[in-house]
Amino acid sequence: MIIEPNRLTAGSLREECGIFGIYNHPEAAVITYLGLYSIQHRGQESAGIVTSDGERLHQHRAMGEVREVFPEEIIAELKGNIAIGHVRYSTTGTSILANAQPIKADSLHGSMAVAHNGNLLNALYLREELEQAGAIFHSTSDSEVILHLISHSRKEDTLEAFIDALSRLKGAFSLVACTEDTLIAARDPYGFRPLCIGRLDGTVVVASESCVFDIVGGSFERDVEPGEVLVMNRRGMESVKPFPEKPHSLCVFEYIYFSSPASVVDGKSVYEVRKRLGSILAKDFPADADMVVPVPDSSNVAALGYAQGSGIPFEFGLIRSHYIGRTFIEPVQRIRDFGSKLKYNAVPRILSGKRVVVVDDSIVRGTTSGKIINMLRRAGAEEVHLRISSPIITHPCFYGIDTPTREELIGSSSSVEEIARYTGADSLAYQSMSGLREAVGEGAEAHCYACFCGEYPLEIPPDVGKEALEGIFRRSKMF
Amino acid sequence: MIIEPNRLTAGSLREECGIFGIYNHPEAAVITYLGLYSIQHRGQESAGIVTSDGERLHQHRAMGEVREVFPEEIIAELKGNIAIGHVRYSTTGTSILANAQPIKADSLHGSMAVAHNGNLLNALYLREELEQAGAIFHSTSDSEVILHLISHSRKEDTLEAFIDALSRLKGAFSLVACTEDTLIAARDPYGFRPLCIGRLDGTVVVASESCVFDIVGGSFERDVEPGEVLVMNRRGMESVKPFPEKPHSLCVFEYIYFSSPASVVDGKSVYEVRKRLGSILAKDFPADADMVVPVPDSSNVAALGYAQGSGIPFEFGLIRSHYIGRTFIEPVQRIRDFGSKLKYNAVPRILSGKRVVVVDDSIVRGTTSGKIINMLRRAGAEEVHLRISSPIITHPCFYGIDTPTREELIGSSSSVEEIARYTGADSLAYQSMSGLREAVGEGAEAHCYACFCGEYPLEIPPDVGKEALEGIFRRSKMF
Amino acid sequence: MIIEPNRLTAGSLREECGIFGIYNHPEAAVITYLGLYSIQHRGQESAGIVTSDGERLHQHRAMGEVREVFPEEIIAELKGNIAIGHVRYSTTGTSILANAQPIKADSLHGSMAVAHNGNLLNALYLREELEQAGAIFHSTSDSEVILHLISHSRKEDTLEAFIDALSRLKGAFSLVACTEDTLIAARDPYGFRPLCIGRLDGTVVVASESCVFDIVGGSFERDVEPGEVLVMNRRGMESVKPFPEKPHSLCVFEYIYFSSPASVVDGKSVYEVRKRLGSILAKDFPADADMVVPVPDSSNVAALGYAQGSGIPFEFGLIRSHYIGRTFIEPVQRIRDFGSKLKYNAVPRILSGKRVVVVDDSIVRGTTSGKIINMLRRAGAEEVHLRISSPIITHPCFYGIDTPTREELIGSSSSVEEIARYTGADSLAYQSMSGLREAVGEGAEAHCYACFCGEYPLEIPPDVGKEALEGIFRRSKMF
Amino acid sequence: MIIEPNRLTAGSLREECGIFGIYNHPEAAVITYLGLYSIQHRGQESAGIVTSDGERLHQHRAMGEVREVFPEEIIAELKGNIAIGHVRYSTTGTSILANAQPIKADSLHGSMAVAHNGNLLNALYLREELEQAGAIFHSTSDSEVILHLISHSRKEDTLEAFIDALSRLKGAFSLVACTEDTLIAARDPYGFRPLCIGRLDGTVVVASESCVFDIVGGSFERDVEPGEVLVMNRRGMESVKPFPEKPHSLCVFEYIYFSSPASVVDGKSVYEVRKRLGSILAKDFPADADMVVPVPDSSNVAALGYAQGSGIPFEFGLIRSHYIGRTFIEPVQRIRDFGSKLKYNAVPRILSGKRVVVVDDSIVRGTTSGKIINMLRRAGAEEVHLRISSPIITHPCFYGIDTPTREELIGSSSSVEEIARYTGADSLAYQSMSGLREAVGEGAEAHCYACFCGEYPLEIPPDVGKEALEGIFRRSKMF
Repeated sequence: MIIEPNRLTAGSLREECGIFGIYNHPEAAVITYLGLYSIQHRGQESAGIVTSDGERLHQHRAMGEVREVFPEEIIAELKGNIAIGHVRYSTTGTSILANAQPIKADSLHGSMAVAHNGNLLNALYLREELEQAGAIFHSTSDSEVILHLISHSRKEDTLEAFIDALSRLKGAFSLVACTEDTLIAARDPYGFRPLCIGRLDGTVVVASESCVFDIVGGSFERDVEPGEVLVMNRRGMESVKPFPEKPHSLCVFEYIYFSSPASVVDGKSVYEVRKRLGSILAKDFPADADMVVPVPDSSNVAALGYAQGSGIPFEFGLIRSHYIGRTFIEPVQRIRDFGSKLKYNAVPRILSGKRVVVVDDSIVRGTTSGKIINMLRRAGAEEVHLRISSPIITHPCFYGIDTPTREELIGSSSSVEEIARYTGADSLAYQSMSGLREAVGEGAEAHCYACFCGEYPLEIPPDVGKEALEGIFRRSKMF
Repeated sequence: MIIEPNRLTAGSLREECGIFGIYNHPEAAVITYLGLYSIQHRGQESAGIVTSDGERLHQHRAMGEVREVFPEEIIAELKGNIAIGHVRYSTTGTSILANAQPIKADSLHGSMAVAHNGNLLNALYLREELEQAGAIFHSTSDSEVILHLISHSRKEDTLEAFIDALSRLKGAFSLVACTEDTLIAARDPYGFRPLCIGRLDGTVVVASESCVFDIVGGSFERDVEPGEVLVMNRRGMESVKPFPEKPHSLCVFEYIYFSSPASVVDGKSVYEVRKRLGSILAKDFPADADMVVPVPDSSNVAALGYAQGSGIPFEFGLIRSHYIGRTFIEPVQRIRDFGSKLKYNAVPRILSGKRVVVVDDSIVRGTTSGKIINMLRRAGAEEVHLRISSPIITHPCFYGIDTPTREELIGSSSSVEEIARYTGADSLAYQSMSGLREAVGEGAEAHCYACFCGEYPLEIPPDVGKEALEGIFRRSKMF
Repeated sequence: MIIEPNRLTAGSLREECGIFGIYNHPEAAVITYLGLYSIQHRGQESAGIVTSDGERLHQHRAMGEVREVFPEEIIAELKGNIAIGHVRYSTTGTSILANAQPIKADSLHGSMAVAHNGNLLNALYLREELEQAGAIFHSTSDSEVILHLISHSRKEDTLEAFIDALSRLKGAFSLVACTEDTLIAARDPYGFRPLCIGRLDGTVVVASESCVFDIVGGSFERDVEPGEVLVMNRRGMESVKPFPEKPHSLCVFEYIYFSSPASVVDGKSVYEVRKRLGSILAKDFPADADMVVPVPDSSNVAALGYAQGSGIPFEFGLIRSHYIGRTFIEPVQRIRDFGSKLKYNAVPRILSGKRVVVVDDSIVRGTTSGKIINMLRRAGAEEVHLRISSPIITHPCFYGIDTPTREELIGSSSSVEEIARYTGADSLAYQSMSGLREAVGEGAEAHCYACFCGEYPLEIPPDVGKEALEGIFRRSKMF
Repeated sequence: MIIEPNRLTAGSLREECGIFGIYNHPEAAVITYLGLYSIQHRGQESAGIVTSDGERLHQHRAMGEVREVFPEEIIAELKGNIAIGHVRYSTTGTSILANAQPIKADSLHGSMAVAHNGNLLNALYLREELEQAGAIFHSTSDSEVILHLISHSRKEDTLEAFIDALSRLKGAFSLVACTEDTLIAARDPYGFRPLCIGRLDGTVVVASESCVFDIVGGSFERDVEPGEVLVMNRRGMESVKPFPEKPHSLCVFEYIYFSSPASVVDGKSVYEVRKRLGSILAKDFPADADMVVPVPDSSNVAALGYAQGSGIPFEFGLIRSHYIGRTFIEPVQRIRDFGSKLKYNAVPRILSGKRVVVVDDSIVRGTTSGKIINMLRRAGAEEVHLRISSPIITHPCFYGIDTPTREELIGSSSSVEEIARYTGADSLAYQSMSGLREAVGEGAEAHCYACFCGEYPLEIPPDVGKEALEGIFRRSKMF
């Protein structure tokens, strides 16, 4: 029996991917394995590595967490000193493994593999165009579209064909790719998703987040710039910027939720931004309370900011189980509802008779918040004031985050008062847009806030309206 | 640890595939599962089924025997009333699963899946041509080439595109394919590999061999004719013959070894041909002996023919283990050499002091024959006369059988006397070419005997000489 | 989901076990693995090996066939130069692994392991007695009872305690046991189940059947005598006969069905006895027919004997699939009925219009015979004459064979005519008792024929009548 | 290949077990599954459940975490309305599964199962005594000793035999047991390990910790008292105290490290004690620093206490990965050293240039502390002051905690200054004994502090000195 995964995070936002690449390291697969481990928070449902030994590519990908997907003997078979890797959050289905990345194929440019983080707005359009030209598709992954664009390019030089392909893409992409002898990294001109480079033992490492360097060793060097394409081969590393410049639009949710607090993204410490989110929230939306409690672990830092900003003591009123990740395969249908319960324990002795500020990073459907508030009350909390470190999410994301459709987004249709009632909070406040910008700080304008305000940095293609796109997305899940 | 399969049949010929298809049956996946079971002797290393529920295709394929690949819950997920299936013998390697069939893809013709038995002479040529046109390849399977040809055809109608694609193929192919609403079966104009159709509960069944009908029920109807394409859809079954006619060239080894004795192939009973092979051999190459012993089970019928033809008593001097298939994953490196031993037990009380005629179907490398003769002698046989029910194999097969290269084929470089010495036989005789033709009987000329005589019915493409082709084959195994 | 095994052999007799032991060989585990392979026909549902490295015992046992249970890395961990092994047929259930043998335990005699073939009549009685003395049981295996008897013996010397324990047993047992430094083999005084010894590389090998020597190498030396206990340790091999002598009573079904035709059991070739069964049957129960067809593979030799005895040609009218063992896990509930079909294919061209004698070794419930006769008729057979190489089974076995209860045994309640009608045979004949004795030949009286005639060599314990015993057995299956 | 587990916690204390029991609930197995989940922090290497359906016991146990061990279909087979469960930390070895609990056996008292938390001082003594009486042992688990004692008791009544057995035990045990119709819970007279009871849907629940009630529902009722035996059967729940009273000696490490902060153990909130440990530490051992950083998650609360007590800001300077539990199977030999790195990420922007107090709960070998301090320095910390919330561990535990031997315990042989130097801390301070007693608060004398001071509440049996016992322990690991 195939057991359907029931994610505890059903009410949360889910990022699609983390990527990693390394050029010219004798332990390329091992380092990539470690790198994927350290960005596992970006995706836990499949993992993959492709290596090149200079003559051919070796691939392994499977459903599951990095530690399950790569036993020792598999890593030993991933020979070569170039490697790219990928971790992915993905929706379930029978064709799911085919969508695991990196995607690998042979073409007139030889063997190539691509792994990406993000979402292409014109993927279906390109897919149709490519099908007209005779392409066949084995998956519904955007990475396969990219491989086809490369092979269909009129450019004979592989790198030129690669850039030609990328210039056709509309949407968010941070990607790594490799051929038998080359590692390529690229970030879309808007810079929606993060990407950075560093050095290890004299070689180049590319990763979604800088926290990898604490694990793999080596040192962070800089962020890959929006619109930058990096090519690493025998001649060294070359940087080109082949695309028209666009307004920088890093997804602000990287600071709010996705990235590790240990990472620095586009020059800003995730930890610092997250803490400022808490302290500004405390200033703007104070509460008369006895303690500040985080929803661990993702809201720990914002809650600490709230506590320090408000002077109200911080307490670990909710204890998180170590044995459940962001995703959780529940073994028994009858106990699906225990989901959130299994994830947290409330601490009655601390909460009993107390007025509690509980800080969370976001509300998507509202069901998780409701469960948490219920747990706190059962543990004796007298008042529960819910504070959200980000503004109300009102719009879906088209750049790589798996938001529910608008109807499911409680923030798109309900007032704050209604949400407070729905979740059972005594009071509820969201971060303001200005508070969010203030927390991000200098250069705050260079980010994407579309999910909060509906201003999409990258225009939706003229032939598909926003609603149509949403429909297409839903349909594409049918594959 | 990945355990390398060490085939007991390392010294044998190996056919590549068996195929099965069914149109419009409410239990399509179950029937296909049973069908694959009954042709499992044609391939034991991977198995796959694709079904269509009218809107989308469902696929499952994995390494292993049919019973391992398809647990109940997998079959339950293969919804729909159209199904095609495939069993495969294949060489090992890390990319092996990607080559398992049926291959499935999306294209401008919708979703399609193909499974085939045979070998395309111009596969690499077509692959290069397709790569020039932008195609990317995820496997080294000829079936993927066929899917690309369909999607690159200029014909808009799916069936026309399909036939257009097939007309580009040079080589041996019996194939089944399906789209969301159509089942297609086709056999190349030479008819190298078998394919037949039958009826079950009023619907159409296609299979490599007629023995499936004993298992799935229903009844055998007729062989698919060489060059025939059958299309089954809502409008019924249509038969077309779109290719220029060619001399019929069914692989004679289907009678000698591959097909089940329970099957009738192109009108001839495999059992009857095989028995005639034995009796003609007895007449042409008698031996002064006390008993005739088959190498079970593949030579049982030929040995019986020899016994009845010669009047020498038939005895089961070698007992075959039930617990090893044609392939065998040996768990311990140190006991690789026990391969043949594990497969057979000699019966000392029967053999002791006796003059034995041992009948086998073919000699490829000669090592297995040597081991068997050694076992018989250790069990007390005084004389061992080896009789082979087919002529000496001197040439490689390019139409779907995995023969060793010419250097490894003992028959291509050694005389019968040398082979007798090498195997330790007191005497050795092969079937004569005329004996083989006589055994096949009426219409014997309409078969391929290339591996015995080097006369290849389908000319090797002008741009690739035979030696080059052999080299390409070897190279293609590197993938 | 745990898939319930549905045995094809549901209508057959099932022996419980095969055993193997080796003393002082550097590759003890590997040789035992090979040995179990070669007696896999005696049990396919679980397999186990215990080795001793001189200081401690290493154990591995699991459900499944030998090749599945022992991957290379497991064998590598079974260190030491003493080993015993076991293959088992067993009924299914959740507690099934606990019953897999060898059973290992620590006691005041140090670490010990036991594996046995047979059935103890007084197992439940001993179990109760031991429980009264404080013993706790982790399984329902007779081997655990034996271990308890050893540890509860008043004898201080391990070997004496061992013999003391064995002398308490009433019933059938051939067993191997080991401690840290000793290998023990024993056969009950009646000699119900076979056991033999041989030499390999100068060391001693013990096995259920002599056919192992073809596989593991080495040479058969002699049968272990009924009532003999062999002890192998640093001082060499010692033979003792500590039990009162009893009439020898080797199970005659070893010749009819269980043992390999390649084995010699208690001085008689299984092949030769089996062939005589066929020829005597032909003489006593002739049939006017065109061909003799065996139910492969277990009836091959008897059918050959019938053919040679009658002068009617032998033909392989039923082809057996290589991909199903004696047991078969059927993956799909709906196709349970396909059981026998999956196992055999009839050969229509041979059978069509013919009068067929089909030879089988026994009829238990009659359902399998019915299916086979049906297959032959569908393939065109005009007449089907069923000949059974053994007499009618009328009584259950209490010495190690899993017969159905009396109600399920078609032979205990139906006349031959009724059975013929039930199976659809045109005529039916069983071997006569005298025919069976004649086939066994010299010393035929020294065998157990209880299942045919109800004369049980070993009196049923006075405190349990036969019917009670049957009830106890049925109840014991509940565990 | 069997991959050796390399625990990240190699330098930590490891508790052996968590237990759970429920009487008369229609979903007994499901509730037990949830209960084991919520005490998974007490043991992650094996898990097991035994249920009773009133007539027989059903058992499943396996290596791995609860979510891996109990897929839906396994739980479905654990029928009945009585259940006991167990999670275990255990040392590795081939015989490891045999030691997984609950242990189940049949005896003259019928079927019984036992699961316990703790360690018996006289287990080997009892084992030898039982072996003299004929007992055989299938495992090295103390639970099996308990089952033997019950079956060897002269008491005829099962409950009396049970109490008779428990009265033979010297050491720490909190246990649950069941027969076909009875659930039993017991805690040794010293009360070394915790055990509590509660109510759910009108039935009784027993568990190691009160945090289970947040997960399974229902409500905490009270701690099981030291020396109390609870019997639940058709006649209701009965409490007896059959043992001589002893000084209460709850392991103080339950507060320091083992129990969940969400639990209340013997009337005291783990969270509150842990926080007081931090604040007293701050008062007694202040540091001139910019921030207090916990080693997450086990030291979170103590660090918060330190921060609040000292007025130094609390910061999450180390981020813990969600994808590694307390134990971690490292797949690649070469990256074993990455252990601690994989578990934590330092936050450079927060730590850079700062004076940091890092709070941990204990130091065992000192290697983990050294790695953490090194990570903090690489992230830029200018000073690192290590504060340990418990006193120096100087003595091994004999009551159920797997401490290293004395030589490996850095605190048993090195001065605080030496440990500071070894770990690289700028300063190091441990909790004082008086600080610990103050933190525990009222009734602090009723606890075991043996690992800090060597005063063992339960005298070591006269026939085994402490050193001998340590040796025995080490030897017993050889099994």
